[in-house]
Amino acid sequence: MAIRSIELDSAAALLSFEQLRAQLRAIGEERYHHKHPFHLMMHEGLLTRGQLQAWALNRYYYQSIIPIKDSIILSHGLDPSFRRAWRKRIIDHDGDANREGGIQRWLKLAEATGLNADKVRAGTGILPATRFAVNEYLNIVRNRSLLEAVASSLTELFSRDLISLRMEKLREHYPWLSGGLDYFEARLTQAPDDAKFAVDYVYANAKTRAEQELAIQALRDKCDILWALLDALYFAYVQPGWPPPGAFRMRELEE
Amino acid sequence: MAIRSIELDSAAALLSFEQLRAQLRAIGEERYHHKHPFHLMMHEGLLTRGQLQAWALNRYYYQSIIPIKDSIILSHGLDPSFRRAWRKRIIDHDGDANREGGIQRWLKLAEATGLNADKVRAGTGILPATRFAVNEYLNIVRNRSLLEAVASSLTELFSRDLISLRMEKLREHYPWLSGGLDYFEARLTQAPDDAKFAVDYVYANAKTRAEQELAIQALRDKCDILWALLDALYFAYVQPGWPPPGAFRMRELEE
Repeated sequence: MAIRSIELDSAAALLSFEQLRAQLRAIGEERYHHKHPFHLMMHEGLLTRGQLQAWALNRYYYQSIIPIKDSIILSHGLDPSFRRAWRKRIIDHDGDANREGGIQRWLKLAEATGLNADKVRAGTGILPATRFAVNEYLNIVRNRSLLEAVASSLTELFSRDLISLRMEKLREHYPWLSGGLDYFEARLTQAPDDAKFAVDYVYANAKTRAEQELAIQALRDKCDILWALLDALYFAYVQPGWPPPGAFRMRELEE
Repeated sequence: MAIRSIELDSAAALLSFEQLRAQLRAIGEERYHHKHPFHLMMHEGLLTRGQLQAWALNRYYYQSIIPIKDSIILSHGLDPSFRRAWRKRIIDHDGDANREGGIQRWLKLAEATGLNADKVRAGTGILPATRFAVNEYLNIVRNRSLLEAVASSLTELFSRDLISLRMEKLREHYPWLSGGLDYFEARLTQAPDDAKFAVDYVYANAKTRAEQELAIQALRDKCDILWALLDALYFAYVQPGWPPPGAFRMRELEE
């Protein structure tokens, strides 16, 4: 039920690979969450431990649905070679016999902030607004075309720079978190590989300009989801907001 | 993908009609949006015209999906007598040959705030967080049982008191809005009728305590949706938040 009114001259020319990539990158510049004040405060060392806990707790809900999101995408992929490529993402997050996955690594980060991993896993105190925004990611991949679902993953085009900066700043300002950064370390190589595949896929499979515009809109919508997650955190846990009834209150969940 | 962990002694006794109704009312006391600071400011006359515009615009998205929500519920109703009763809601909001519906009435309210009805209908500048919260209402009625979908409508148990107060306060503090209050006038009688039907339905169709608890949880989740809509408005348009990229900025949409 997103409102998506793509206004387009039907004769508009197909974007070249370079043009498409430039438009996708411009969306990141405009609305990726690297510019969100919550992240700026994090990178300046201005967040309290309680605020970092609220972030780790709420972001866990996002992490926990990523393999579900990717399973939906897998279920829409008719081509075995596409599914072989995409299933890597599920393994990256759920792990296998030899490696723990991204979800487990995020729990280690949450523990490093002082949260109890079992409570985080149970979702105790997650903001309703977090659930609504994250569930919208599932709505997008479930209800739109495979092309748009793949395009919505393209925030990975922008994540390496943000993660590199974040790791440096977390180590500098919150050295007690340093033992919990394995998640980010792994994403430094996983995300760029995934983004390359997805950009190539979008370019190859968007056969008209209208389809290219739908793909671009899906990335815009995904950026809005990530941004809304931080708005909700900022409003509930940074001045002068308040957590809604039933949500995590700072210091309540510490072990 | 809501996290719903209902912990319950399997031998727990079925609630009586009065007990069930009391538990539903207690949820309203705890988390219905009559206590939200955005509404408190409205009732004290502290909101600016721009803030009332932002409210009318964003709340329009909620209004616009209500008949879609009720159509999903209708599609899950196997009993013709249930469907005959429930379809009234669709007519109330979409109108018929003799009466304009609630959606049209809400547009009149939006116009009374100074917004352009066509732009409101197009959804220009609606907060992403509004879409995410409202779409979650569709997720609930689509993915849960009919019992839970019906129960999620039970915020209507609480709406008459809020609407009565709101009409009085809007007339007092914002007399220039008085011509736009038909929506609320109609809801004063529609909502209590609907709530009575839904409470009776939930009591008659929740055959176990576990089902009663699921119904209660659905109402709690619905309250969280309404609350989150106002959080997003407060954060974006009341100090010291900011609207996210692409969202309505105050004064920009006036005719």
